[in-house]
Amino acid sequence: MLDAIGIEEILNYLKIIYEEQMPFNKYLGIKIDSISPGGVVVRIDMRDELIGNFEKNILHGGVMSSLLDFTGGVIAQIHVLNEMKDATLDKLVKRLTGMGTIDMRIDYIRPGKGAHFLATGHILRLGHKVAVTRTELVNDEGVLIAVGTSTYIVG
Amino acid sequence: MLDAIGIEEILNYLKIIYEEQMPFNKYLGIKIDSISPGGVVVRIDMRDELIGNFEKNILHGGVMSSLLDFTGGVIAQIHVLNEMKDATLDKLVKRLTGMGTIDMRIDYIRPGKGAHFLATGHILRLGHKVAVTRTELVNDEGVLIAVGTSTYIVG
Amino acid sequence: MLDAIGIEEILNYLKIIYEEQMPFNKYLGIKIDSISPGGVVVRIDMRDELIGNFEKNILHGGVMSSLLDFTGGVIAQIHVLNEMKDATLDKLVKRLTGMGTIDMRIDYIRPGKGAHFLATGHILRLGHKVAVTRTELVNDEGVLIAVGTSTYIVG
Amino acid sequence: MLDAIGIEEILNYLKIIYEEQMPFNKYLGIKIDSISPGGVVVRIDMRDELIGNFEKNILHGGVMSSLLDFTGGVIAQIHVLNEMKDATLDKLVKRLTGMGTIDMRIDYIRPGKGAHFLATGHILRLGHKVAVTRTELVNDEGVLIAVGTSTYIVG
Repeated sequence: MLDAIGIEEILNYLKIIYEEQMPFNKYLGIKIDSISPGGVVVRIDMRDELIGNFEKNILHGGVMSSLLDFTGGVIAQIHVLNEMKDATLDKLVKRLTGMGTIDMRIDYIRPGKGAHFLATGHILRLGHKVAVTRTELVNDEGVLIAVGTSTYIVG
Repeated sequence: MLDAIGIEEILNYLKIIYEEQMPFNKYLGIKIDSISPGGVVVRIDMRDELIGNFEKNILHGGVMSSLLDFTGGVIAQIHVLNEMKDATLDKLVKRLTGMGTIDMRIDYIRPGKGAHFLATGHILRLGHKVAVTRTELVNDEGVLIAVGTSTYIVG
Repeated sequence: MLDAIGIEEILNYLKIIYEEQMPFNKYLGIKIDSISPGGVVVRIDMRDELIGNFEKNILHGGVMSSLLDFTGGVIAQIHVLNEMKDATLDKLVKRLTGMGTIDMRIDYIRPGKGAHFLATGHILRLGHKVAVTRTELVNDEGVLIAVGTSTYIVG
Repeated sequence: MLDAIGIEEILNYLKIIYEEQMPFNKYLGIKIDSISPGGVVVRIDMRDELIGNFEKNILHGGVMSSLLDFTGGVIAQIHVLNEMKDATLDKLVKRLTGMGTIDMRIDYIRPGKGAHFLATGHILRLGHKVAVTRTELVNDEGVLIAVGTSTYIVG
C-alpha cells in the first residue's frame, strides 16, 4: 500500500524524475520549487538560450508552453496519487506512466520579462479517463505572464 | 518599395533571422526547410535533449508546441509580406516585429516517434488586427503527430 | 452483428435521433444534410431567432459553436461505428451514448452572413478513450465562417 | 463625458440591450442577474428546449458555450467602459459595437444538471487590440459545470 511508503516520499521521488529523468525538462532547466499533496510550484530561471526573438530578454512562448503543460501534468499526477493511497506501487507507477497530454490552450498575457518564472495551477476535473487543469505563469514580481488549460489522459 | 528588393530576398533574410537570431529556435535546432510566398516547411531533427520522459525517444510536447507556434507565426508573416508589396522596408519591419502570438491550441495526436519532424500549415484569416492559422506536425514517415490552431496580433 | 443490419440503416436511424430526439438541436433547426460511413454534412437555415446582436442578420457565435461541436461529435460517432462492424447493437448503443465532448476550441473567421450554413469536418485521432476532430462552417457561398477543434470521450 | 451620464446608467442600458436586443440571447432566455463596474453574473433557467440529447435534463453544450462566450464579452465590455470614463458616448458606442469574439476554448467539466445556471468570470488582459477572459458556469448548487477562455477584438 502507498500509505506504508508515504505520499511525501513518492513526491520526492517524482521530483527527481521530473528534474533529472526527463531530458527536455533538464535541457530547459525546469525545477520543482515545491511539491506536496496540495499542489506544485514549478520554476525556471531566465537564461540567454530561452530568449525568443524580437524583443530582447523575453522568455520564448515555447518555454512557457512547455512549463504550463508540464505543470498541469504534475497537478493531475498529484491528484491521481491522492486518490490511489490504497493501491500498490506497481499499479500507481503503471497509472502515472500511462498519463499524457491530450490538448492544451495557452494564452500569452504579457511579455515574458523576468529573472525567473513560477508556474502553478489547480485541477478542474479528475475523471476515470480524463483530467483537466488550469495553470498560470508569473514572473519574479508576481506579474501574470501566461495561462494554460490542458486535458490529460489519466486512464 | 518591397518589389524593388524582391520578396524572395526578404524571405531569405527572414530565414536567417529565424534560424540564427532567435536564441530559443537555435537552442532547439529549428530549421527552415523551405520558404516562399506560398508557404513554409519547418524542420527539426531528433536529438536526445528533445526527448520527453516516460517513453524513450519520443519528442517532448513542448518542442512540438514551440514548432507549431513558430510555424503559424511564419505563415502569418508571409501573408503580411504578400499584402505589403507596395510598402517601404521600414514599414514592413515595423509590422513584422510588432507581431506576436495571442493564444494557441495544440492537440497531441500520436507519440512523437521519428528521426526528424516537419511542420507546415495555412492561414485561415488575415485581418487588420489578427491572423489565425492551422498547423500540422508530421514525422519522417509523414505520420501526423500534432496539430495547432493559433492567433497572432498583426496590427 | 451490425453488418447484418447494415451501417446505412443505422446512420439513417441516427439521423432521426440527431434531428428529432435532441431537443436543443430541434430548437435550433439543425438538420443532417447527408450522412454516410465517409462523413456528414450538417445544415442550418438562417432565422431571425439565430441572429446575434450588433450587426443585423449575422449568425450568433453560440449557434456556430453548437453546430461545430455537434458535427465533430457525429464524425466521431461515424468512426466508432465503422470500427464496430462486428459488435452487437447493444454494445454499439452503449458506446455511442457514452460519448461526450471534453473540450472545444472555436475560431470565428468571418461574420456569419448567409441564408444557410453547412458544417463538415474530419477525424484527426480515434483512440480507445478519446477522439479528436477538426470542423469547418461555411455559408451558402462556400465562404469559411468558423472552424473548430474538439475532443470527445469515446471510451 | 461618460462620467456625467454615470457608468451605472450605461450598464443598465447595456443590460436591456443584452437581454432584449440580441435575438439569440432572448431565444435562449439569457438574463443579466447583476451587472456593475466590478463584474457581471449571467443567468439562464433550464427549459426543455435547452436539453441536449442522450441524458435527460442535461443542459446542451451549445447553450453553455453561448453563455460563456457572452459572459466573457460582457466582462471585456465592462473593462473597456471603466477605461473610457472620459470618452464621449459616441466613441464608447463605436468601441463597444466594434468588439467581437476571436476565439474561445470551452471545457465541459460536469453534466449540466440543474434548475438554473450562473456564469461569471474575470479579465486576464485588456490591451489596445485584444482582451482575454476566463469564465465559469455553475449550477444552482454552485457545482462547476464548464469553464471558458476567450479572446475578443476590442480595437
